[in-house]
Order: sequence, then C-alpha cells, then structure tokens
Amino acid sequence: MSTPEPGLPMVVPAPDLPARVRIHEVGARDGLQNEKDAVPTEVKAEFIRRLADAGLTTIEATSLVRPEWVPQLADADRLYPLVADLPVALPVLVPNNRALDRALALGVRRIAVFASVTESFAKANLNRTVDEALAMFAPVVARARAEGIHVRGYLSMCFGDPWEGSVPIHRVVRISKALMDMGCDELSLGDTIGVATPGHVQDLLSELNEEGVPTSAIGVHFHDTYGQALANTLAALQHGVTTVDASAGGLGGCPYAKSATGNLATEDLVWMLQGLGIDTGVDLGRLTATSVWMAGHLGRPSPSRTVRALSHQEP
Amino acid sequence: MSTPEPGLPMVVPAPDLPARVRIHEVGARDGLQNEKDAVPTEVKAEFIRRLADAGLTTIEATSLVRPEWVPQLADADRLYPLVADLPVALPVLVPNNRALDRALALGVRRIAVFASVTESFAKANLNRTVDEALAMFAPVVARARAEGIHVRGYLSMCFGDPWEGSVPIHRVVRISKALMDMGCDELSLGDTIGVATPGHVQDLLSELNEEGVPTSAIGVHFHDTYGQALANTLAALQHGVTTVDASAGGLGGCPYAKSATGNLATEDLVWMLQGLGIDTGVDLGRLTATSVWMAGHLGRPSPSRTVRALSHQEP
Repeated sequence: MSTPEPGLPMVVPAPDLPARVRIHEVGARDGLQNEKDAVPTEVKAEFIRRLADAGLTTIEATSLVRPEWVPQLADADRLYPLVADLPVALPVLVPNNRALDRALALGVRRIAVFASVTESFAKANLNRTVDEALAMFAPVVARARAEGIHVRGYLSMCFGDPWEGSVPIHRVVRISKALMDMGCDELSLGDTIGVATPGHVQDLLSELNEEGVPTSAIGVHFHDTYGQALANTLAALQHGVTTVDASAGGLGGCPYAKSATGNLATEDLVWMLQGLGIDTGVDLGRLTATSVWMAGHLGRPSPSRTVRALSHQEP
Repeated sequence: MSTPEPGLPMVVPAPDLPARVRIHEVGARDGLQNEKDAVPTEVKAEFIRRLADAGLTTIEATSLVRPEWVPQLADADRLYPLVADLPVALPVLVPNNRALDRALALGVRRIAVFASVTESFAKANLNRTVDEALAMFAPVVARARAEGIHVRGYLSMCFGDPWEGSVPIHRVVRISKALMDMGCDELSLGDTIGVATPGHVQDLLSELNEEGVPTSAIGVHFHDTYGQALANTLAALQHGVTTVDASAGGLGGCPYAKSATGNLATEDLVWMLQGLGIDTGVDLGRLTATSVWMAGHLGRPSPSRTVRALSHQEP
C-alpha cells in the first residue's frame, strides 16, 4: 500500500494479476466514427498526439473503409501522415485489398480487420454473411503478413446480439480460430452491446484456450451499456489477459447496435489498473486533460466517471 | 449457460462465488436524502412498496436524525407506519437514544448507526470526533440489542477521504472492531468517495478476518464516482461477501464528500449477479420499472446504465 498522490488511487496489488497491461486505445477511431459533425483532421491529429503524450502506446488512428460507410473517417489518408511520426503503434482498420493498398501507400504498420460472430451483425455492418466476410479478409491478412504488417482481428457480438439474443460460445471460438488460422496476430473480443458478465467472459477465454488460442493473443473490448465493462475487465485480467481496449473519455459506441451506449472509458480502466499496481505507462492526469479538451471540441461532457470526478464536471 | 430472456443476461456462473447475495437497498434513504425538493411521503411509501414487490428483502426505509440535518427525511415518523406491514426488513438510521425512543415507538426492528473512519468526516457529518461518535452509539446499540433489534454499523470513508487522502486499513479495522464489540450484528464498509480498487477491497477484508471480524458480518457499500463500484463488488464476492448495498436507479451520493457522485445502482448489480447465476430474489424488469417511475417523480433520468439500456432512455 502506498499513499496516493492527489487524483490517483491508493496502490494495493491483488494476487495473480498481470504486472503490465497494454491498453489498445480506440477513442480516435471507434470513439469518433459516429460523430455526426465532422471533426477537423487537425483536431483528430492533435487528439492522437495528446493520447501518445499521455503514455498510450497503441492508438487506433482511423479506418480505411469506404467514406460513405463512415463519413467521419473519410479523411484517413490526410490524417495518417500527420501522426505517422509518433513513436507509438497506430493501427488502422482495413476491410479489403483496395484499402490495404491505401494503407501500404501510407506506410501503415498495423492493421485490423473486423469480423462478426453473428449473421445479423455481419449483414448490418458488412452486408455479407459471416463466412463471406471471413473470405474477404483472408487475402488481406495474408498479404499484410507477407509485408510484415501486424494484424488484429476484431470480433463483434461475442456475448450477445441485439437481433439474435444469446450467442453460443462455440460460434465465437469458430470465428476466433478462423481469424488466427488466416494469420491474425491478435484478436479483440467485442461485447458490442455490453451484456456480458464475468463468468461468461472467463468461460469464453477458457474455451478459446482449450481450442488452441492462447491468452497472449487475446484482447478484450467491453462496452459499458449495462455498467459491466470494468467488472468484466477484472475477470479477464484474472484469466491472464493483458490487452484491454478502451476509449479515452468513454467516447463512442456502435450505431447499428441497440443500446450500445459507450465503450469502456480509458480513464476508468486506468484508475483500476493504477490502484492494482498494474503498469500501463499512462499518466492519468494528462489523459483526463486530453478527454476534457476533446469534450470541449465535441461540445458535450465526457461520459467517463473518472473524467467527471477528476475534472469536477457535474454528472 | 442458458438462453437469456429478453432484458436479462445469459447465465454463466463463475467458480468460488456465493450462491446467494442479499442486497441491502438504500435508495429510499441514502438515495433520497439529498433531494432538495421534498418528495411526498406517499411517493416514498409507494417507492418502498414497489421495491419490495420487485423482490428486495432489505429496504432501508428512512432516518431518525434531526430533521434540520436531513430535511428530506423529516417525515420518518409518518412514513414508517405506511410501510411497516411489508414482509421485508426495513432498517432505519438511528444516531442516538432519543432517536431510538422514536424507533421503538414506531415498532422498528432493525436500526443502523453510522460511524466515520476519519476525523474529518466525523466532524463534518456528526460534529464529533471519531471516538465521541462511537461513545454516542454504544448505549444506543446496547439498548437496541436488549430489545432484540438487529443493528447495522455503517463505516464511512473506508478507502479514502476527500480531506485526508489515504485511509490506513488499520484505522478501518479499529472502528470495525469497536462497532462489533459494542454489539453490532453487521457492518457496512463504505467507499464514500468511490476511490477504492479491487486489491484494496480484498486487503481490507482479509485484515478484518485476521482481526476476528467474520466475512458473514460484513456488507460492502461502493460508490461509482470513478466507475469502480461493480469491479469492487466482484472482488468482494470473490472474498465471500454476501451482503451488498446498492441504490435503485443509482440514486444518491454524499453531499459532504467532494465528487461523491452516486451509489452503485441496484440494477447494474443485479445484471451482474443474474449473469453469474447468483440468487438475489430480485425481478430486474420490475425493479427497472420502479426506477423509471421514481425518475419521473424526481424529474430527471436515472444514472443507472442498466435502467437506461432496458428503458431505452438516452444516456
């Protein structure tokens, strides 16, 4: 136990948790993609620079999907060069070979593909079946790997689907293995509608391990729709997970998923990890200041409880 | 694993958790006490009736502190008889012998006293030192016990204090033992400013056990100021705690504590417990409907994420 500095929790480690966690920061991509009013490219670049300055080492920068799908990220080719010099990993979403051409031209070194576990969401998000989407990604992943590019595979709707209800664990395992088999370096298990609870998380992780997917290749991506994200994160850490997705200030959600109100806020995650003595490299004060700055640009307060508490915003 | 009904999580138990948790519902007392506009007594009674109808078995009803301290609860003597026939436990806050006289006249069978771990909060909340407050409670607890009344002892500021910063665990242990020694049946460990993290929770529980306070006598009372309440609850459950305080709809907080924005919402707690297959007896749909109904009376949306998701309120 140590005396806390102002604005930081007391540090009291718990047994059997990882010493270090890598936060995969998604605020600049997942967090901003559904903003209706265009955020200026320079503001996005400054956001990413500030996130890097706060100590985040993996900052998802943007997406190379077709501009009509996600108009907010249509400036990807202009944005990426503005941040490419930062000494951090800057993954970019790449759905197909044409997007990979653009990524290679930009010098991108990390990409992500985004599969769905459920047919309903594959149809809604990609206008394809689950297997058609996997078939679309396979040559992209193969080519990226041949170029020495690190590939993340997102899986949406791993714990429940707004149209289909429950999602059997064996279906998540099947898609996970397919993505690993095609060459993904890591997975991100998304609870897109935020319904997961800790036992469900640990069961899925155990099943994946039994089917040959190592915990070291698994990241978790929880939403706070039902307030469960941080408890689920604790359950994942107890299983050995060391990669956790979060969004600065709790920005974002998913427009195609009913009630998907909000990614896990990076600040709330960092508060817990800092209290547990788990190293993230993140300066919570700088990160909070960044989210307050971004909230000013977006014209509404951050939904992160930690940001509100530390900046004394009204809830 | 079972298929979820609409509006309920999939049930996937986790190992080494209690089979049943008793929720100590504080919405009608802690949740309402800081409302500026007087809530009609009949609305409070209806709130308590609806909470009982939703399956809650321990519903803190009101407080017998002096009306000038908590004007909102000045109607305690009129409210209690309106709900006394409900087949649930209805604890009432009782600070001193005069209040105990009133409680006995009302037929109250469960009371709670409220100690502070820190001198700053004892001064702010009770205008006494920590030990003066304990001395005030001792004869109240003794007399209540002699009358066969169940006594809960609240401890505020167990994990941090807005004026003093860190709170050493040995101080929490000292106050806990003092309350148990004077005859309290159970304790409620309050994280009044919401700064706790899971390792801190488990360390405190272990220390209390080592000093002779059994887990069966310990309830936990977390605030969501930094978004940590549910993760801390999971940590407490893993230690064996089976009594968890929560407030329907996330009502309330503490006006004397900087940034104390919100009790753990009962609905968010029930979502997790239901997903873990832990029996609470609570019907989440009825509880959510109750919080939506109460939010209508208070004129603002519930801060509970689960209430928002299930009632499709905008965040």
